[in-house]
Amino acid sequence: PRTLNWNPSLVEKRGFRHFMLKEIHEQPGVIRDSLEDRIGDRGSPVRLGLPTDLFAGLERIYIIACGTSWHASLVGKYLIESLSGLPTEVNYASEFRYNLPPLSDRILVIGVTQSGETADTIEALKVAHQQGVRILGITNRPESSLGQKYEHIIDTRAGLEIGVAATKTFTSQLIAFYLLALQLAHLRDTQTPERIHEILTGLQQLPTHIENILDTQERYITELAREFDATRDFIFVGRGLNYPIALEGALKLKEISYIHAEGYPAGEMKHGPIALLDAAVPVVAIAVPGKVYEKVLSNAQEAKARDARLIGVAPLDDPAAVETFDQILPVPVVDELLSPILTVVPLQLLAYHIAARRGLDVDQPRNLAKSVTVE
Amino acid sequence: PRTLNWNPSLVEKRGFRHFMLKEIHEQPGVIRDSLEDRIGDRGSPVRLGLPTDLFAGLERIYIIACGTSWHASLVGKYLIESLSGLPTEVNYASEFRYNLPPLSDRILVIGVTQSGETADTIEALKVAHQQGVRILGITNRPESSLGQKYEHIIDTRAGLEIGVAATKTFTSQLIAFYLLALQLAHLRDTQTPERIHEILTGLQQLPTHIENILDTQERYITELAREFDATRDFIFVGRGLNYPIALEGALKLKEISYIHAEGYPAGEMKHGPIALLDAAVPVVAIAVPGKVYEKVLSNAQEAKARDARLIGVAPLDDPAAVETFDQILPVPVVDELLSPILTVVPLQLLAYHIAARRGLDVDQPRNLAKSVTVE
Repeated sequence: PRTLNWNPSLVEKRGFRHFMLKEIHEQPGVIRDSLEDRIGDRGSPVRLGLPTDLFAGLERIYIIACGTSWHASLVGKYLIESLSGLPTEVNYASEFRYNLPPLSDRILVIGVTQSGETADTIEALKVAHQQGVRILGITNRPESSLGQKYEHIIDTRAGLEIGVAATKTFTSQLIAFYLLALQLAHLRDTQTPERIHEILTGLQQLPTHIENILDTQERYITELAREFDATRDFIFVGRGLNYPIALEGALKLKEISYIHAEGYPAGEMKHGPIALLDAAVPVVAIAVPGKVYEKVLSNAQEAKARDARLIGVAPLDDPAAVETFDQILPVPVVDELLSPILTVVPLQLLAYHIAARRGLDVDQPRNLAKSVTVE
Repeated sequence: PRTLNWNPSLVEKRGFRHFMLKEIHEQPGVIRDSLEDRIGDRGSPVRLGLPTDLFAGLERIYIIACGTSWHASLVGKYLIESLSGLPTEVNYASEFRYNLPPLSDRILVIGVTQSGETADTIEALKVAHQQGVRILGITNRPESSLGQKYEHIIDTRAGLEIGVAATKTFTSQLIAFYLLALQLAHLRDTQTPERIHEILTGLQQLPTHIENILDTQERYITELAREFDATRDFIFVGRGLNYPIALEGALKLKEISYIHAEGYPAGEMKHGPIALLDAAVPVVAIAVPGKVYEKVLSNAQEAKARDARLIGVAPLDDPAAVETFDQILPVPVVDELLSPILTVVPLQLLAYHIAARRGLDVDQPRNLAKSVTVE
């Protein structure tokens, strides 16, 4: 473990009550920084500074991570598979290191760790490396152990994050995966230049959309949080690339409010977890237009039939959403592929305001460390 | 959906208070039936009635399932990868059907559904089949839609299961995966005949071990259940091939007792969920001798440091386990590879007795159906 020499003037709350809230609000700027200099022209649309032979002749990708980075990796899997057609599997670092799958030099292992010091991830990369795989690191600290050990790194450029519950570093990891997936799509010629350009343009518009969410919803979510003063359980559901966002929304709430929140792929509810539902267990569903929109709404309605209170992260004025949900945390409608970067923001705010109202130490939740440097 | 013509004389509780308890006790017999006629000689150690060309030249396996079958599939992945070296990924059927990975005729897709009628699994197999993959079904009802549609089926032979919470059908699915993984190991020559023989012999000894657990622990677990009359949350942890058993233990409790139980890979606790722990949240850890034994004990001790009450599914007389856990639900020590079939049994009993004490309708929990034939 190494200590970083940050400029103390960067480490201020700038009028926010907690670092976590400040960091949530920093996300538009972080996305702009993460994209800066990395979008090129038609012949080389993505510029990550990675050599093309890192990706040549790949058979398969494994992504290994823990906690919030693991959720970003699940979105990454979806992006890589759907944009580039490369089979990609996400593993918990703590599991992977003791159960290596068959590996070879035609396999890329991507380790994702904000701090670059997460013990399980570092060790998992080490044992994989010994099997001759190629390694790519995604980290917010290129000067970390991870960055020192491996040549190929994507710097997520989120700046110092003080809040133990990761927010801006999560969205910056997502941006890294968008860029990586588009790079692979370009190299493998699996998407047209127009589609790649369209997604890159969409990414550049996300900061404005997030500013819009932060400007219009903060007060509403602060009010909404009052209604959950006595709530002990929450369920979060989503499908497709918003299923990991459901997991992340649940983890944020669990980490800082100590409410037992759990995320599920929406289609799994009826295979067990729905037994838990009654009027005391709110359900948060992420439902944005795209190929699983109606399916999520339908799963949400099943929950409503069990008296659960239903909150939708959904478009503002869509009649189907208005009819389904008791409350809507609205997000602008964008290409479904880009939606996770928007849908996570109201969930971060919801977790923050519920915990802050309870008077909890949001930036330093009990039992947790910012960087887990022990196994 | 088709209705099955079962002999009514089979559908009796035989003195048990609930079908679920009867079905838990039927597991030794089910395992014997599942192995019957399926163990051969050195030249052909496993006899599943499947043609060898189903497995020739395979690149990769996807297993798709929902609920308890999904947990069995996670164990299946571990067995197939560790015994045969074939990369195997498990997907939720409800996710897979709308997000197909790259598929080809060198990929085997295994659909696991007790009823053979689970809508998401049937539909996921259908869309995969259209992409030219090979299909194998694992089901308890070979006469079901699944069995009628696909030629290659492993019949799990568990007999009719009335309790909505799956127990004996889960262990029978595990047996199917052991046999399949050993078949693959034989065909791919990745294990010695001696090792294959050793595992098969170990499988045949499991019924006696389960009888031993049932005989000696039922009364103890009945007593232990009293102590959780007011408990609202439970955490279950495990590693390696007992991580899915932690998920299954949590799901059983959630389904029939409506306690918010959640399973985690033990190494993930410190990346978030540990914030939830205090004296009111018991932790159940599966810790059996093998390559992750000390790691699980160490994770369990972290939970104990947060005042959580600690219950171990662990060997009876091991000093490290005795020192770590407040209570032990003992399981006989067997080859780690075989341990999931034993470790799940005390967890089934624990869930059953907690729910039965609360006077809940164990066989027909609220909101749940035995076979989910809608999307």
